[in-house]
Amino acid sequence: MWQLLQFPLCPFSRKVRLLMGEKGIAYSLVRENPWEYRDEFLHMNPAARTPVLVDSARNLTLSDSVAITEFIEETSDTAPMISGSATYRAEIRRLVAWFDQQFYGDVTAPLLHERMKKRLVHRQPPDSSVLREAMRLANGHLDYIDYLIDHRSWMAGSTMSMADLAAAAQLSVADYLGGIDWSGHEQTKAWYSMFKSRPSFRPLLSERMEAITPPSYYEQVDF
Amino acid sequence: MWQLLQFPLCPFSRKVRLLMGEKGIAYSLVRENPWEYRDEFLHMNPAARTPVLVDSARNLTLSDSVAITEFIEETSDTAPMISGSATYRAEIRRLVAWFDQQFYGDVTAPLLHERMKKRLVHRQPPDSSVLREAMRLANGHLDYIDYLIDHRSWMAGSTMSMADLAAAAQLSVADYLGGIDWSGHEQTKAWYSMFKSRPSFRPLLSERMEAITPPSYYEQVDF
Repeated sequence: MWQLLQFPLCPFSRKVRLLMGEKGIAYSLVRENPWEYRDEFLHMNPAARTPVLVDSARNLTLSDSVAITEFIEETSDTAPMISGSATYRAEIRRLVAWFDQQFYGDVTAPLLHERMKKRLVHRQPPDSSVLREAMRLANGHLDYIDYLIDHRSWMAGSTMSMADLAAAAQLSVADYLGGIDWSGHEQTKAWYSMFKSRPSFRPLLSERMEAITPPSYYEQVDF
Repeated sequence: MWQLLQFPLCPFSRKVRLLMGEKGIAYSLVRENPWEYRDEFLHMNPAARTPVLVDSARNLTLSDSVAITEFIEETSDTAPMISGSATYRAEIRRLVAWFDQQFYGDVTAPLLHERMKKRLVHRQPPDSSVLREAMRLANGHLDYIDYLIDHRSWMAGSTMSMADLAAAAQLSVADYLGGIDWSGHEQTKAWYSMFKSRPSFRPLLSERMEAITPPSYYEQVDF
């Protein structure tokens, strides 16, 4: 069986877990704190990032969340999440990169640094100006998601895709860390509320990161 | 015909151009300086990054270099660069992400900022401590590439792949900006020398960015 090395607030691990959940692929979780740079972990992934997906029986060690999700797409024939025409697939992948890189860089990464790493690793208080800027940028991102959802049924078009999973992964971590102000973003809120009720998402939402408490509405479908 | 919006030192545009060159796909170049945030360009790609690949006749606008290269792979049947077993394809994609993100973040991005953007946009001198750190990290990256080439014929295994194109794209920009010290890296040097002689690479190496001169050996196959 697959083992997924991750920590509860890793958005890239969440993206892979949502995909495996949607496809009904079984896996067990192994806790990894990439910021500890454990030798064995660096040997598995020199980039020192989670997720890493391992199947010891088959001697397989996969890393990089895009490489992993493409691998899962190619080796599973249920619930394809990068499907349709080549143009539609390019739009799905463009949006995955948008959430993995732009949303992560603007919002999730600074929130994780200020509210998780500073608390667990550096024992420092968060920098409120960095938090304010991340929340300001989050608001701009929600405007863009509102626009997408207004013009399409799902993030990339008429079907649920990897783009929705990548978006939900980043948004859920940012929401856990109190970085999302949902007011005025009814389209994104409705999409996220629907997403929260999916069986692939429930187990992620019930997990907690030690010493960090999410807002009271974090797990609720109506929020 | 395809139009590629790019600037001469964009490593992600170089990756796409190497792929199109290897496949013999024709395109024309359109100069875009993403740091000018031109409205029309932001409309094409809200991430404000090059490359953007356009075919006006077919009303196609593609952005994000990974989405573009996957699109080209899926719609062309010559010279596949993401091929082989699912496991091999995962290794190719892991290394593409390595060069696009780790190498770029550690080496190419700081070099571009200090030696190109500061000169062309901010009219400031480069920060020599940032340059030193980028060159120190570049040396570590070359050690890793030496190790890969020592164990494999090409970057990801027995065939030339997207991983080689991603590596050559980043390395060539870093080399143009004087950030690579080749001494002591014979394996990587031999691989890069061979790569420099490929017809897909020659046109890129002969281009110049205004106001920035590469080292004298930059274009030479023997260096």
